[in-house]
Amino acid sequence: MKFEINAKDPKSRARAGELNTDHGTIQTPIFMPVGTAGTVKAVHTRELKEDIKAQIILGNTYHLYLRPGLEILQQAGGLHKFNGWDKPILTDSGGYQVFSLSGTRKIKEEGVTFKSHIDGSKHLFTPENVMDTQRKIGADIIMAFDECTPYPCDFKYARESMEMTHRWLQRCIDRVDSTDPLYGYNQELFPIVQGSTYKDLRMQSAEVIASKNRAGNAIGGLSVGEPAEKMYEMTEIVTNILPEEKPRYLMGVGTPANILESIALGVDMLDCVMPTRNARNGMLFTSEGIINIKNEKWKDDFSPIDPAIGGYVSTFYSKAYLRHLVRSQEILAAQIASIHNLTFYLWLVKEAREKIISGEFASWKNIMVEKVSRRL
Amino acid sequence: MKFEINAKDPKSRARAGELNTDHGTIQTPIFMPVGTAGTVKAVHTRELKEDIKAQIILGNTYHLYLRPGLEILQQAGGLHKFNGWDKPILTDSGGYQVFSLSGTRKIKEEGVTFKSHIDGSKHLFTPENVMDTQRKIGADIIMAFDECTPYPCDFKYARESMEMTHRWLQRCIDRVDSTDPLYGYNQELFPIVQGSTYKDLRMQSAEVIASKNRAGNAIGGLSVGEPAEKMYEMTEIVTNILPEEKPRYLMGVGTPANILESIALGVDMLDCVMPTRNARNGMLFTSEGIINIKNEKWKDDFSPIDPAIGGYVSTFYSKAYLRHLVRSQEILAAQIASIHNLTFYLWLVKEAREKIISGEFASWKNIMVEKVSRRL
Repeated sequence: MKFEINAKDPKSRARAGELNTDHGTIQTPIFMPVGTAGTVKAVHTRELKEDIKAQIILGNTYHLYLRPGLEILQQAGGLHKFNGWDKPILTDSGGYQVFSLSGTRKIKEEGVTFKSHIDGSKHLFTPENVMDTQRKIGADIIMAFDECTPYPCDFKYARESMEMTHRWLQRCIDRVDSTDPLYGYNQELFPIVQGSTYKDLRMQSAEVIASKNRAGNAIGGLSVGEPAEKMYEMTEIVTNILPEEKPRYLMGVGTPANILESIALGVDMLDCVMPTRNARNGMLFTSEGIINIKNEKWKDDFSPIDPAIGGYVSTFYSKAYLRHLVRSQEILAAQIASIHNLTFYLWLVKEAREKIISGEFASWKNIMVEKVSRRL
Repeated sequence: MKFEINAKDPKSRARAGELNTDHGTIQTPIFMPVGTAGTVKAVHTRELKEDIKAQIILGNTYHLYLRPGLEILQQAGGLHKFNGWDKPILTDSGGYQVFSLSGTRKIKEEGVTFKSHIDGSKHLFTPENVMDTQRKIGADIIMAFDECTPYPCDFKYARESMEMTHRWLQRCIDRVDSTDPLYGYNQELFPIVQGSTYKDLRMQSAEVIASKNRAGNAIGGLSVGEPAEKMYEMTEIVTNILPEEKPRYLMGVGTPANILESIALGVDMLDCVMPTRNARNGMLFTSEGIINIKNEKWKDDFSPIDPAIGGYVSTFYSKAYLRHLVRSQEILAAQIASIHNLTFYLWLVKEAREKIISGEFASWKNIMVEKVSRRL
């Protein structure tokens, strides 16, 4: 998995790059739509590719492991074959969902035991079996098994958790390096920096992660409730240490403004459920600002949702029509809003990339952050 | 609105025709997807046109009148402009929904008073204002305001109701003929035959409706719980009387087998919520038979849903993947199943048309009725 840097912004740490995978090249900075259970909610595979122009999507190991289960996924020949998405897939380690969705869970050095939120059945995730699981799902990029600490988190817990995450990482590496890809294409492991909101822990963790010399590196444990300033501060500390020549993935981030600010700090890859989850609640991100489409003011606005970003959905349907669908609780409302929001997110990172290449990113970013954050 | 008959099947009453509207030509026999609240549920306008290859869709006057309301629809320039569907639209009269959805309703000679199922507000539908409403919605084909009798229905009620429907029809005609189209294209009224399951009432009603000499004629009050044989018997009686040279629309029908049998009796147009409603419950109609996709047997069937009928959804997604989506209660499940079922219905009537033209309809129909009715 080769990463090439095409351009660096002169006035920020932003860079434009290309990450080559066996399922094609990803142009960075990139936003990765979240496909929890093998589907980006309310979006067809074709729409993801042709309308949204996604280049890589996420799968959630926790969800896919429980349903449809590894047996079905292996019989299908992996997730790409199962859902028809033939571009790169990144899977998380399942750790985050085990902590957030599973009612009862026990963290031990060996791993985490938890109960399924679907049927209450008991399961054990270890660094080793989570590597095997992600191989079976068929991810191009496999995430290390870590503990994502909550916010706030006391220093002692954050330090001990980080140290365990580092020990788990070595077990992940040992497992991945002693096993083979399952479906004929390369599967690369990305380790994850933890350390909560503690500067020294973040530095320490970034050093450890950098020393492992993997194909890419991730920053976890942010966007979990801390103030945005804290998140940027931690991200900057970490991107200063993580190697320049490897892609950097900031996990679970965020709003359009968060994304632009993180790119300015040297982040190359991001993911978040926000564009799809908020879409299902009638919240639209547009190139002009944020729209709550349920508001009365849109009832007779027959202009397209966001003509500036292009794409079928954003140029074809009017705000008034979408508002009507949302109020009528029509499924199509979720479809249109999800496709629109993802189209906007992908448009935004593409614009960012172009501005990095043309050397105008920093000033453009400051204007855009204000624009995309305002409420219309 | 000109109707041309291209071919007649030598061994049945089936015919292939073309109905010319100001929004394009409809090739008959045709199935019309139901777009209740201005959207065919879970289906994008583009998919309706390019994947499903729908030629005309329905809108429900009751739903559209209540939400978004006539003011918004008129400001939009009619339903075509509002939802982006630029082919023909037929609207029902709202009568059926007033009777089935509205809690309290009172039928009088003047019209029907009812309470909205959304907010309990009180409304009055009359033959006259329902014509105005359909003009405002912007239908190419406007349906007469009638009473759809339930099944079973005693003879006296059926007769009196039919007689009122005939009186209402004259009021509809007077109103339509004394008002102009609102959006620059022709809007034609179709009267509706009633008479429950009584042969003499059906004959009487068909004679009255035929005598009005409108651009097309409809058969209502069937597919409301009566045995299929009774429905075919009534349909046959009526199609024997309704003029040959006008399109015949059998309302609210039905299963794939019902559709083929009705075509054989001389029906040209049909609509039903079944393909979309059943899709949302995991029931698929295919060229090989009926599939309950929730069944265990499909869990590792990685073959496409129905490659024989063509189209993106039916050839791209596997049965196992769709089953997974249904079990995971993913919105995409409703989308895939709805598009598939509608693609199948449109494929079926297109096949029927081709068989009528090639003179093989009757024998093909008998084989297909068995095939599409079996449970896989």
